[in-house]
Amino acid sequence: FLSSPIDTDPHVQTNIMFAVDHKPGALQQALDVLGQRNINMTRIESRPSKTGHGYDFYVDFSTPKGTVQDVGALVAELKTKCERVDVLNSYEVPWFPRKIKDLDTFSSRVLGAGAELDSDHPGFTDPEYRARRQKIAEIAINYRHGQPIPRVDYTANEVATWGSVFNKLTALYPTHACREHNYVFPLLVQNCGYRADNIPQLQDISEFLKDSTGFSLRPVSGLLSSRDFLNGLAFRVFHSTQYIRHHSKPLYTPEPDICHELLGHVPLFADPDFADFSHEIGLASIGASDEEVKRLATCYWFTVEFGLCRQDGKRKAFGAGLLSSFGELEYSLSDQPEVRPFDPFLASKQDYPITTYQPIYWEAASFAAAKEQMRSYGESLSRPFAVHFNPYSQNIEILDNNRALLEVAKRLDSDAKKLVQAFKKGFGEQ
Amino acid sequence: FLSSPIDTDPHVQTNIMFAVDHKPGALQQALDVLGQRNINMTRIESRPSKTGHGYDFYVDFSTPKGTVQDVGALVAELKTKCERVDVLNSYEVPWFPRKIKDLDTFSSRVLGAGAELDSDHPGFTDPEYRARRQKIAEIAINYRHGQPIPRVDYTANEVATWGSVFNKLTALYPTHACREHNYVFPLLVQNCGYRADNIPQLQDISEFLKDSTGFSLRPVSGLLSSRDFLNGLAFRVFHSTQYIRHHSKPLYTPEPDICHELLGHVPLFADPDFADFSHEIGLASIGASDEEVKRLATCYWFTVEFGLCRQDGKRKAFGAGLLSSFGELEYSLSDQPEVRPFDPFLASKQDYPITTYQPIYWEAASFAAAKEQMRSYGESLSRPFAVHFNPYSQNIEILDNNRALLEVAKRLDSDAKKLVQAFKKGFGEQ
Amino acid sequence: FLSSPIDTDPHVQTNIMFAVDHKPGALQQALDVLGQRNINMTRIESRPSKTGHGYDFYVDFSTPKGTVQDVGALVAELKTKCERVDVLNSYEVPWFPRKIKDLDTFSSRVLGAGAELDSDHPGFTDPEYRARRQKIAEIAINYRHGQPIPRVDYTANEVATWGSVFNKLTALYPTHACREHNYVFPLLVQNCGYRADNIPQLQDISEFLKDSTGFSLRPVSGLLSSRDFLNGLAFRVFHSTQYIRHHSKPLYTPEPDICHELLGHVPLFADPDFADFSHEIGLASIGASDEEVKRLATCYWFTVEFGLCRQDGKRKAFGAGLLSSFGELEYSLSDQPEVRPFDPFLASKQDYPITTYQPIYWEAASFAAAKEQMRSYGESLSRPFAVHFNPYSQNIEILDNNRALLEVAKRLDSDAKKLVQAFKKGFGEQ
Amino acid sequence: FLSSPIDTDPHVQTNIMFAVDHKPGALQQALDVLGQRNINMTRIESRPSKTGHGYDFYVDFSTPKGTVQDVGALVAELKTKCERVDVLNSYEVPWFPRKIKDLDTFSSRVLGAGAELDSDHPGFTDPEYRARRQKIAEIAINYRHGQPIPRVDYTANEVATWGSVFNKLTALYPTHACREHNYVFPLLVQNCGYRADNIPQLQDISEFLKDSTGFSLRPVSGLLSSRDFLNGLAFRVFHSTQYIRHHSKPLYTPEPDICHELLGHVPLFADPDFADFSHEIGLASIGASDEEVKRLATCYWFTVEFGLCRQDGKRKAFGAGLLSSFGELEYSLSDQPEVRPFDPFLASKQDYPITTYQPIYWEAASFAAAKEQMRSYGESLSRPFAVHFNPYSQNIEILDNNRALLEVAKRLDSDAKKLVQAFKKGFGEQ
Repeated sequence: FLSSPIDTDPHVQTNIMFAVDHKPGALQQALDVLGQRNINMTRIESRPSKTGHGYDFYVDFSTPKGTVQDVGALVAELKTKCERVDVLNSYEVPWFPRKIKDLDTFSSRVLGAGAELDSDHPGFTDPEYRARRQKIAEIAINYRHGQPIPRVDYTANEVATWGSVFNKLTALYPTHACREHNYVFPLLVQNCGYRADNIPQLQDISEFLKDSTGFSLRPVSGLLSSRDFLNGLAFRVFHSTQYIRHHSKPLYTPEPDICHELLGHVPLFADPDFADFSHEIGLASIGASDEEVKRLATCYWFTVEFGLCRQDGKRKAFGAGLLSSFGELEYSLSDQPEVRPFDPFLASKQDYPITTYQPIYWEAASFAAAKEQMRSYGESLSRPFAVHFNPYSQNIEILDNNRALLEVAKRLDSDAKKLVQAFKKGFGEQ
Repeated sequence: FLSSPIDTDPHVQTNIMFAVDHKPGALQQALDVLGQRNINMTRIESRPSKTGHGYDFYVDFSTPKGTVQDVGALVAELKTKCERVDVLNSYEVPWFPRKIKDLDTFSSRVLGAGAELDSDHPGFTDPEYRARRQKIAEIAINYRHGQPIPRVDYTANEVATWGSVFNKLTALYPTHACREHNYVFPLLVQNCGYRADNIPQLQDISEFLKDSTGFSLRPVSGLLSSRDFLNGLAFRVFHSTQYIRHHSKPLYTPEPDICHELLGHVPLFADPDFADFSHEIGLASIGASDEEVKRLATCYWFTVEFGLCRQDGKRKAFGAGLLSSFGELEYSLSDQPEVRPFDPFLASKQDYPITTYQPIYWEAASFAAAKEQMRSYGESLSRPFAVHFNPYSQNIEILDNNRALLEVAKRLDSDAKKLVQAFKKGFGEQ
Repeated sequence: FLSSPIDTDPHVQTNIMFAVDHKPGALQQALDVLGQRNINMTRIESRPSKTGHGYDFYVDFSTPKGTVQDVGALVAELKTKCERVDVLNSYEVPWFPRKIKDLDTFSSRVLGAGAELDSDHPGFTDPEYRARRQKIAEIAINYRHGQPIPRVDYTANEVATWGSVFNKLTALYPTHACREHNYVFPLLVQNCGYRADNIPQLQDISEFLKDSTGFSLRPVSGLLSSRDFLNGLAFRVFHSTQYIRHHSKPLYTPEPDICHELLGHVPLFADPDFADFSHEIGLASIGASDEEVKRLATCYWFTVEFGLCRQDGKRKAFGAGLLSSFGELEYSLSDQPEVRPFDPFLASKQDYPITTYQPIYWEAASFAAAKEQMRSYGESLSRPFAVHFNPYSQNIEILDNNRALLEVAKRLDSDAKKLVQAFKKGFGEQ
Repeated sequence: FLSSPIDTDPHVQTNIMFAVDHKPGALQQALDVLGQRNINMTRIESRPSKTGHGYDFYVDFSTPKGTVQDVGALVAELKTKCERVDVLNSYEVPWFPRKIKDLDTFSSRVLGAGAELDSDHPGFTDPEYRARRQKIAEIAINYRHGQPIPRVDYTANEVATWGSVFNKLTALYPTHACREHNYVFPLLVQNCGYRADNIPQLQDISEFLKDSTGFSLRPVSGLLSSRDFLNGLAFRVFHSTQYIRHHSKPLYTPEPDICHELLGHVPLFADPDFADFSHEIGLASIGASDEEVKRLATCYWFTVEFGLCRQDGKRKAFGAGLLSSFGELEYSLSDQPEVRPFDPFLASKQDYPITTYQPIYWEAASFAAAKEQMRSYGESLSRPFAVHFNPYSQNIEILDNNRALLEVAKRLDSDAKKLVQAFKKGFGEQ
């Protein structure tokens, strides 16, 4: 009757609290009410009642969606046995990946395959371009976790397109991009082949990011749902396209392409604070409701895609949508748009256009501060459990049991010990 | 049926684990077995069985000593309902103080009142000395937590005795005492009136220690049991005598007196690492068995009373029994005694004489290392719960429920945040 | 040339960063610039430059206010020796208490002695009342840290005034006060003599609070400056008046009196989360600028004095100014005033009237959440150092050196170990 | 003149402390002494002197081995400028891997290639076996970090050899192997193809371990030095052979082979506590002296290879050398050998035979306890710095600067916050 709390299908997780007085048998009578309904409890805990006599019980149970129990009737019956019954939560838990390998399931849910172009796409009427897209998309479709990302032998035409974009944008970075982007960029030139005449390979970049912050890239054949995309960030995985825009319009693309990913996104993921910020958005999305995922995606839009920040008293761009768009990069730092101090509680509710320049931008004080803000925002979500990413096993763990908490406590203990040792060694002590 | 785990009378705390399979009603049947015996459960928790199917239940219950339940029969009956039953622990929890105010109860249990001298005491036949002892003892008997410690107007005779001891010992400290003792001693001269012609007052010293490490003194009229004395250390309270030895033999005392406390013990309690070391012994003694208290008292004997340590390649004394005894201080650093590296697992089992110089001493690598060793030793004791001293409320808390764990986690969170801030401020970041 | 960073007089603390390239002698030349000006450095640290070659140096120095150094000239000269010089901070550090004993200095700075009433005070023309005020004020004036707070033998007249207020307010609490206030109130009745016919004594209450959350009371003879009052909270000390309002108008007082303190403030200080919230405001005020202290005092006003909160879907009062005012308590929960969600970044800038009911209230989600918000707000202040309250020694420590950081790390280590032990013991493991 | 502390060549790291009095210029004079010798300082820090006046300076410098500075002369000259000079440490830091990719350098240092058999090896005179060994060894020689481990198509002969060993040993495990081995074994059957008629593939096992504890396998062509092998464990990498013993003697092998690795070692690396224990040995070996590496290798021998433990009152085997040897497994649990409680301080100094059964075994109380013991042992080593494994970037970091400490503190902060959230969610709080 106790089951693991979250399955691959959506479940409704209900947490109730009831108070029983201090006489033997009272708990059993209350539990019978649940037992007779074949309800699977996932937690039973108790603590002394705040009223001073008797005890409060916390019981969680999980029921498959669709077979929803009549919680109202249950509570009514419990009330005949107990002094007080509260339904603390009744929450529908969407499916989410628990292991990094589970991200393999995303590729079958890509919204629009790589070659299905909209009629206004510059390559819509170019059969050669569409065939090429299809071929590159297949790499992503067949990719499985743990494999090296296959290299693409880009054509001269493709490299020329890349080169146009590369030259235009790198001219603006020193004055328009944030400090972290400019710090990392030369390292990408040095280590990953960033050059006007070469399209860097995802595998090389993924290894570089892994070594910097533990982020990695995964090829994707088209658009993922917001939920899948953000869930990937919870594993420090960024889904990256591998194909390039149509050569006819090198400075325009209606969708993410490798220019956007490599010039806009990649440099920031090598910065520890930005990586942690992105990771926080990802962790917040795990098991979030549809409405909450939408809001988190809006936060992502206004930061990772279109974020500004203030450095040494000046406004700078860090959003990939800006850093990969010559026109909007200049516009965003001009006097034209409205700029507000970043606050995820406000930004998450803001509407935005997707085909024009943004009318409103949000300015972060720093990535570290933005990370703290996202963490606070994440804590405010309705999810009735806390999640943790185990960096060793690359699993998402639900912190709803002492065993999982012990593992976190052990890590704390180990890290605290490290600090103590470091300080002592610094003074020549053992 | 759930009661607070530890009462003022000794209780037997029993922890059992039983496995029930995955069908509704199984837990209830098992709990009925306990309910029918009117057993008060103090904890119910569950986790998935390591065997892969069903769940393991952890149930603790507490029964007053003397009304001991027939655990054997209980287990036998449980075994008819469950797949597996283990008695993890059945532990008699001695009474212990939970609040610092509870130390007020110790004074009625002093072993031998202050004036009841043994026949071989140098003051045994001196009625004036005995009356004086009685008068000073009454201060301790009437003392209650929170009061300032009354000052004693010591006689010229008493001051002369103190002066003899003071002059003899302070001549040896620069060469024989550990670094920490020599560091603190001038501060006691400066702040607490340590002089050959003045016996310092407990209240002044207690305030000085409080400000240094949070330790405080409490007057005591005679000897406490090992349990009470060590339990006091768990609250960072050191029980100190206030009377002085007989003037006829200034360099001898068969029992602790104010010369021993103030010259031997006090300086070290102003050292953070020594204070923490002493605190660890105290915490280990909370709820320990009689046999374990005896072993902890032996650790105390070989460290706080007779400990040696190694500093800058030389052997030094830090035990109060040495630092207050001219003869044994010299002897202990000579070639005569055997000296072993401190290890509480070994030292705790070592017999020792109380009327002659020690044949064996134990040498600590450092107070910080000794503290870690005591913590490990404390963790090896049989007590089936973890204890925590809350420095704000000065309460001992039992970490057997999520509410108490939450408080510790909050403090961790607050301290970790402090470190993060400190490091950031160090680089001019917000 | 290195001095302890903060003295009793205000100092200007300056943090500069300069980059020197990788050749011997460069640091010395830069330090010479400081040395020739007799500048006392308080910190020297280095880290590899983000630019990849050479090193960045962080140097802090502290100069007495009034003898201000020409930092501009210094920087200009440094620039001739170094690649880059940044003044990270130049901050005037106001004096603040470092030890709990330092609060003894506040009494000489009380704004208006206890008996100097304004002309519109109901007791202004009552010489007997003024003499009584003077007498009670002297208790506070003579009080020193560590002493028990002397008891006041209140007159029948005074008790009658208290009784009127007590009866009026306690009738409203069950419906108007927050959960925590209602939880603690019966404990104050039981432990501290809260009754209509008895004015409780500060000493009894202080002991009760100490045992609950480590807060304590200190008598105060009149109004403290915002800085002094908030600095007291950093030590978990609440300054409380001991006199009572004029009997002619029992439901009115133009200033804090014992009814306000005991009925409004005291119950909340027994709640751990509220205590921590108040402590955070206090810690933020340590070394804050005058402008920042004013903003923190505004936060205090809108929370500890006039705060509302939401509990079980209803609005409740927790501010002492409300809980001690029959009229405003009812008004504040009516539809009349404007209520905003608490946000210290906004609330701290809001003007407010002091003689009429508040037009705007701020509603906290919970004390724990409000504490986190205050902590974030505190971190945003300009103070160029992090502070820490050591609960053992009751000292405020500046975390600007490894020794202080080591102590925090040790505490973290100890607490983490406690959690690990607690979880293990919960499963019968050693 | 400040350089990164550790290079690829061995360096001598020296830490000195000197005291300078409180007058401008004193530090500069002392630093000049170092500057004139072109010495590269890696750290400068100061703290107030324990003597109460002046300041103590801690300066570290690193000099290439072979160009050793005359530290004696340096100190002599410093002594003419400073009050006191202490050489805290002068330590030769061996090269060690900083990134997981650095393990790629090990393969060129394998002691004895895979096909160079000793004359008493059962396959010494079998040219077919030697050719096969060579072929499999080349997989390891060519392997680079990040690649999947190539699969070997084992011959029927090889599978038969594996089958003999498999059947013999699995018959003993239920009674002789530790609980953790028996818990994991069925999972390996289920997930990795452990069967009598199939030799499992390293890649499948590596993925399974990665998902369990973050350990991974790397193929190795022969024996590594103790230092390289243990350094690998610091990255949670276990170097595993891929070839199999000679079919002529299925129950005998003079060296590690795939039977030893897969049946003996692999199951335990899926246990979190054992994985952490092994990781601790690895971390201790980073930068350890040759003598210390020898002692750590002895600890490894007496635990990971030949360790016993006590479970439910019975002795069980967890060492791979036992779990892969039918004969010694039975012998080790018999009355014949001597068994001592595991203590790394003692075990590390114990000699042992490598061609006969062990005369002495060491029995661990638990893996968690053994991990703590190894951590304490590691802290006692002479290495003058603390190291930390960053699980995200898979880098070894030296905690000798505030930037690195900040990262650890951030992780602590994040983990502590997680615990707070988890406890709160457990009670339906936000």
